[in-house]
Amino acid sequence: MRSFLFSSLIFLLAGSLHAQSDSVFIRKIADEIFQHSNAYSNLYTLTKTIGQRLSGSPSTYTSEKWAQEVIQKAGADRVYLQKAMIPHWVRGGKDQAALVSGKNRQSLAVIALGNSVSTPAGGITAPMILIHDFNELEKRKDEIKGKIVFYNHPFNVDYVWTFMAYVDAVPYRVFGASRAAKYGAMGVVVRSMSSATDNFPHTGAMIYNDSLPKIPALAVGLQDADKLVSAVAIQKNLSLFISTNAHTLPDTIAYNVIGEWKGSEFPDQYITVGGHLDSWDPAEGAHDDGAGCVQSIEVLRALKAIGYQPKRTIRVVLFTDEENGGRGAKAYSAEAKAKNEKHIFALESDGGGFTPRGFNFKGTDSQIAKLQPWLPLLVPYGVTEFKSGGAGADVEPLNEATGALASELIPDSQRYFDIHHSAGDVFEKVNKRELELGAINMAALIYLIDKYGL
Amino acid sequence: MRSFLFSSLIFLLAGSLHAQSDSVFIRKIADEIFQHSNAYSNLYTLTKTIGQRLSGSPSTYTSEKWAQEVIQKAGADRVYLQKAMIPHWVRGGKDQAALVSGKNRQSLAVIALGNSVSTPAGGITAPMILIHDFNELEKRKDEIKGKIVFYNHPFNVDYVWTFMAYVDAVPYRVFGASRAAKYGAMGVVVRSMSSATDNFPHTGAMIYNDSLPKIPALAVGLQDADKLVSAVAIQKNLSLFISTNAHTLPDTIAYNVIGEWKGSEFPDQYITVGGHLDSWDPAEGAHDDGAGCVQSIEVLRALKAIGYQPKRTIRVVLFTDEENGGRGAKAYSAEAKAKNEKHIFALESDGGGFTPRGFNFKGTDSQIAKLQPWLPLLVPYGVTEFKSGGAGADVEPLNEATGALASELIPDSQRYFDIHHSAGDVFEKVNKRELELGAINMAALIYLIDKYGL
Repeated sequence: MRSFLFSSLIFLLAGSLHAQSDSVFIRKIADEIFQHSNAYSNLYTLTKTIGQRLSGSPSTYTSEKWAQEVIQKAGADRVYLQKAMIPHWVRGGKDQAALVSGKNRQSLAVIALGNSVSTPAGGITAPMILIHDFNELEKRKDEIKGKIVFYNHPFNVDYVWTFMAYVDAVPYRVFGASRAAKYGAMGVVVRSMSSATDNFPHTGAMIYNDSLPKIPALAVGLQDADKLVSAVAIQKNLSLFISTNAHTLPDTIAYNVIGEWKGSEFPDQYITVGGHLDSWDPAEGAHDDGAGCVQSIEVLRALKAIGYQPKRTIRVVLFTDEENGGRGAKAYSAEAKAKNEKHIFALESDGGGFTPRGFNFKGTDSQIAKLQPWLPLLVPYGVTEFKSGGAGADVEPLNEATGALASELIPDSQRYFDIHHSAGDVFEKVNKRELELGAINMAALIYLIDKYGL
Repeated sequence: MRSFLFSSLIFLLAGSLHAQSDSVFIRKIADEIFQHSNAYSNLYTLTKTIGQRLSGSPSTYTSEKWAQEVIQKAGADRVYLQKAMIPHWVRGGKDQAALVSGKNRQSLAVIALGNSVSTPAGGITAPMILIHDFNELEKRKDEIKGKIVFYNHPFNVDYVWTFMAYVDAVPYRVFGASRAAKYGAMGVVVRSMSSATDNFPHTGAMIYNDSLPKIPALAVGLQDADKLVSAVAIQKNLSLFISTNAHTLPDTIAYNVIGEWKGSEFPDQYITVGGHLDSWDPAEGAHDDGAGCVQSIEVLRALKAIGYQPKRTIRVVLFTDEENGGRGAKAYSAEAKAKNEKHIFALESDGGGFTPRGFNFKGTDSQIAKLQPWLPLLVPYGVTEFKSGGAGADVEPLNEATGALASELIPDSQRYFDIHHSAGDVFEKVNKRELELGAINMAALIYLIDKYGL
């Protein structure tokens, strides 16, 4: 609410300072993208020809090759690769689980969490203990030993901005295994971080505390999670069977794919726009983050196509390894810092290819204040909010390393966690116009910052 | 932009007049709907058990029965039926078309337009003439006789608010047949009113000029429309074959289903909230307008569930026959006028169950001015705009008859015309949270107007 009030006030005071010519130019961007965008067809190729892009999997490399070609074709002056050593976790086959009650086994829709260790060959069967939150875990710590902990922390549907529910639930996925291992658990099964109506399990990164035993960790689909809860309510002495071949190989090499469009006035000032090329493996990484990749490429293509000549050097960066460790973002910011590059702005799109609602920013107050008069220029394209607070995982390190203002597109969040990191994240769930409308707003913001500076 | 400026200004001046208690109450509405809504499960039943609801078809009556039960269960004091004589157009079987070139026939994805007459038994085969707009039709009027006119007026993708593209294209569907019949055309095929990436044809109402011959009218899917254009470019002497058994039976009886929740202070003042129960027949009428129906019922259920006691009488109205002639809306407004009922507000949802962005209003300046200070209360739920200009087809007649302020929910419009009146308008295309978020904003607005009056 505060940001709304603030933006309105500034708008009223600043009036139509830039209005006329900028609104005409942004209309031109919009027409170009709505009429001639490659974003949707590029996303089709990325998702349907290359498919999932788990860090270190063969498609890491086919997607890098694809990205180089597409960014070149979009009009970059040069395209180059930036090396990063990335973790190489492999799923190793089909993850399995079952609810075991005497001789009855009911199989469950599960998926191992990224970074999980394997179960011993043949899996683990152990008594199940239902735990709702970490408070309960602590209270019942004496009951954990030798059991499989089922964390059933629900995704809070009350948040309109669904990322808040994710932030609330995700510690169970990330830290749940080691928290339970501390008290002797054999494994954990986590309720998926979603409020979807289907039963797809949702994977995602987890982190071990290296001083504790590493136990396997899986996510379970929501319908099956509810089944487990119901079973516990009517029956004691239930066990869980879990099985996964997940394991981690030595770090391997991957690359950020970078396309550069040289600035005419300040070529040594950089504006970055990007998404991450890797994805989780149950589907195609269409919204997460194929959408952000093709939108970023589209920003370059469209601005170039309508004859724009940037003052500053614009870089399209498709980051490697966002999901698994953020090593691509680290490599990019580290090199920027080592070379003392002057980065003024870095924008990412990693909230899905849904209809845009705003931008979120991480920077100084004076950087952010400069933006507010431009908000009315984006309102006709659906962006009604410039929020201060944070940006995304791929651009925040650059903010920290160089002081560049960092930002992320805020798409409508209602559908994101229905498909996030699950088999539901497929091309068919992306709408062409919503994807394009995101790219339009991204291109418009890049244009304004390039033209006026920060 | 003007409405944005206006709303911001009023907001700043009015400050937090109602803020605290109202924002708490609206949060309560949101929690209730996110946690306990029946909207999505009601929509499932309506679309999957009853299915399409073409005016006069058997499901007109099964859906009325369903609506009575569901509105009663949602907590209405009484539920009653309001009679309307509705047109009874029937499709009569599968519509067909083919591109004919010598002995080659390539079948096309088509659907007869609502109100179209049939072709003679065995269909019509006649030379095709490609016409882009009515100007071209007039210029080439001497070439029309004995031909089938293919209107290929594209859906303008440049409009961010896609309803503008619809308004631009829809005259070809509504008036194209008679305009062509005037010059002796045998039939018309219209490019579907959509920019979808699939090939589903989109039906919808058309109107004959009774002083001209009535010729059959069909819509063709976009991919096939493009194929026709390509074919014309490389070949002359192409013909079209069209066949439909569509015909109109005598008017029949249907009902608006009305649920009433009596006001405690001003029971003779009415607030209406509704959607239309009928739909076109190629799919399930999930977005158009199952969504609006179940949202309207949810407004009643949720306000009742959290213990709200309305000052004014709230009516949930599921209108009959919006698609085919608007007879339900006419019956409702006519009875309101005849009984001299005092209607202060009428809200409909008929733009799809997509994430909400604003409300549109038709009323006097003073009615609309009263609303603007409330906008900030809805901003946290995604509504950032109160626009003046119009409302929907089911509530505008009430505005004209009684002076009630009329309004429609404005959902995000990017996906609507992908599925509108086509086989794509199915339950699976509706997102639970988006549907609920619309109901939350509708309930909040109804609450504010009931509490403070207009």
